[in-house]
Amino acid sequence: MNIQNHSPRTLPFSIADDFRLERLLGYNAQQKIISLLGHVNGVRTIVVMEKTQFAVDSEEDVKKWLALIKQPNGQGLQQVIVNDKYYMLNLPAMEDDHFNLLNTSIIFPADESDIAKYSMQSHELFLETPSLYQEVTRPYIDKIPKEHEKWVDNLLQKQSEVEHMIYEDTESEEDLRFMLHPDMKYDKVDRNQLYCIAFCFNKEIKSLRDLSTERHLKMLKNVRDRGCQVIEQLFGIPREKLRIFVHYLPSFFRFHVHFTNVDNTSVNNGVERAHLLDDIIENMEVFGLDFYQRKTLTITIKGTHGLYRSFKERTTNVDRK
Amino acid sequence: MNIQNHSPRTLPFSIADDFRLERLLGYNAQQKIISLLGHVNGVRTIVVMEKTQFAVDSEEDVKKWLALIKQPNGQGLQQVIVNDKYYMLNLPAMEDDHFNLLNTSIIFPADESDIAKYSMQSHELFLETPSLYQEVTRPYIDKIPKEHEKWVDNLLQKQSEVEHMIYEDTESEEDLRFMLHPDMKYDKVDRNQLYCIAFCFNKEIKSLRDLSTERHLKMLKNVRDRGCQVIEQLFGIPREKLRIFVHYLPSFFRFHVHFTNVDNTSVNNGVERAHLLDDIIENMEVFGLDFYQRKTLTITIKGTHGLYRSFKERTTNVDRK
Repeated sequence: MNIQNHSPRTLPFSIADDFRLERLLGYNAQQKIISLLGHVNGVRTIVVMEKTQFAVDSEEDVKKWLALIKQPNGQGLQQVIVNDKYYMLNLPAMEDDHFNLLNTSIIFPADESDIAKYSMQSHELFLETPSLYQEVTRPYIDKIPKEHEKWVDNLLQKQSEVEHMIYEDTESEEDLRFMLHPDMKYDKVDRNQLYCIAFCFNKEIKSLRDLSTERHLKMLKNVRDRGCQVIEQLFGIPREKLRIFVHYLPSFFRFHVHFTNVDNTSVNNGVERAHLLDDIIENMEVFGLDFYQRKTLTITIKGTHGLYRSFKERTTNVDRK
Repeated sequence: MNIQNHSPRTLPFSIADDFRLERLLGYNAQQKIISLLGHVNGVRTIVVMEKTQFAVDSEEDVKKWLALIKQPNGQGLQQVIVNDKYYMLNLPAMEDDHFNLLNTSIIFPADESDIAKYSMQSHELFLETPSLYQEVTRPYIDKIPKEHEKWVDNLLQKQSEVEHMIYEDTESEEDLRFMLHPDMKYDKVDRNQLYCIAFCFNKEIKSLRDLSTERHLKMLKNVRDRGCQVIEQLFGIPREKLRIFVHYLPSFFRFHVHFTNVDNTSVNNGVERAHLLDDIIENMEVFGLDFYQRKTLTITIKGTHGLYRSFKERTTNVDRK
């Protein structure tokens, strides 16, 4: 569409007065968009509205925003959720405006790791060849203190988060077993937002790179088939609605699989990091069990990640040619 | 984080009065989020604000929204952009509120295809085996009227959109050549949002499935290496910041490649549809030129798509086992 600006032009009708709503066509909760079908004097009309982003061109803009915030006191604050240093509440940006609320989280006091977490960080793409994996990534993984994955052990041994567990595979042999939990972001209510994680019991598999045997293949199929069955039974979502994938690099090095509703678009399912489970299985079956030992994989690394410097030093564009 | 609700609780300070801004930590323009670092009485504090989604639980909610809209008349409407039946403008949701604008698009009059485009449509995932491609997808592609891709011919022959062209490869042999255009969503200003499309001159390649020869491989490398060079020269974005990929199924059947800034998260780069160009090249080199004739590919299809019914009828979950 080649937009030309013929200003000044006016809209030939008033939205508030002339537009008769027929139905909601669609909405996007992440992007804050709605699309509406209606008519104006009998002519079918679509109105699409998207909330604007925060004006952040200058510090003054941000300060103006902050100054606007109306903080109700007393009973108006009943909806504050507090956990330790985390406060969560909805605030109106202007007096008596119940339509433009701000979903606000406050961390008080905040430490360095909180600051890192909420800071915008730029990503870079690198090609991890099998030899770069052996020389750089694998030693990095081996040096991660065992305590970092203690929470996974607690989970698998049912010493924590037991109340959230969705399913435990108790029938399969130990090295094929897995446990299904909701992702932190999933409230178990909105089916369109379904997001579950299958944690695998086999501790030897740190990541995609370690998949290499017939038993691993059998485990992958077990996770896929049983996981789909359970999700269909419990949530009524059929297999063809599930995007099932693995991250590489993962955020922690114990093999786990993401199950999400394909209509959930707020998921970290970008091609630069996600690998479909069906693809992994097929690649190992058709192109060899050692596919993920032979494959060069694209990885994205933030500037603050422990692997960033090593990759930045060792890879040059020459590698790509 | 296991949030517990200890209501009524109050926030121990006022954001508007007590919070001293130190700096903007980050923002997300798509999701309308900002995160701010500051301090309250010397204690470091983070405030994260996200605009709320439109309340769409009932038609009444939507009608209330519409009734709020203030439509400035006369010179206030100078910012309306009009092209044919498309109108674009920013509207305040309440009088004198310059902070909560609504980025509004209006299609007047709207036809069936507009309604389909803006309707929320559910996707399903299917496994396209090589034989399903031959029996179902290929005949579908072959039946698409040539006029549907006339706009691509116009573009390559410089009969339209010439003013937008970013680069034309005139040095390579005909079957290796490509032309670089901005994607419709890209304004050529914000480097973080970079989104360009390389249109390939070789008309024989309808999609990923047709890639099969040494010449094709040479073309892919030409597009990648020359495309990266041009983007670095013109926009100052280095190769390691570029997510380069192909869609399968594509939205039109003439081979083209997407170049986007890896920090641009509003891109359709989900693993269920996108294939990294580096992966395509490596797969053909390492696992055989016929990789994409042998590979089973996951495809996502909307219920209204011409291929939906055929796939729904022919594939069952049995295929996956």
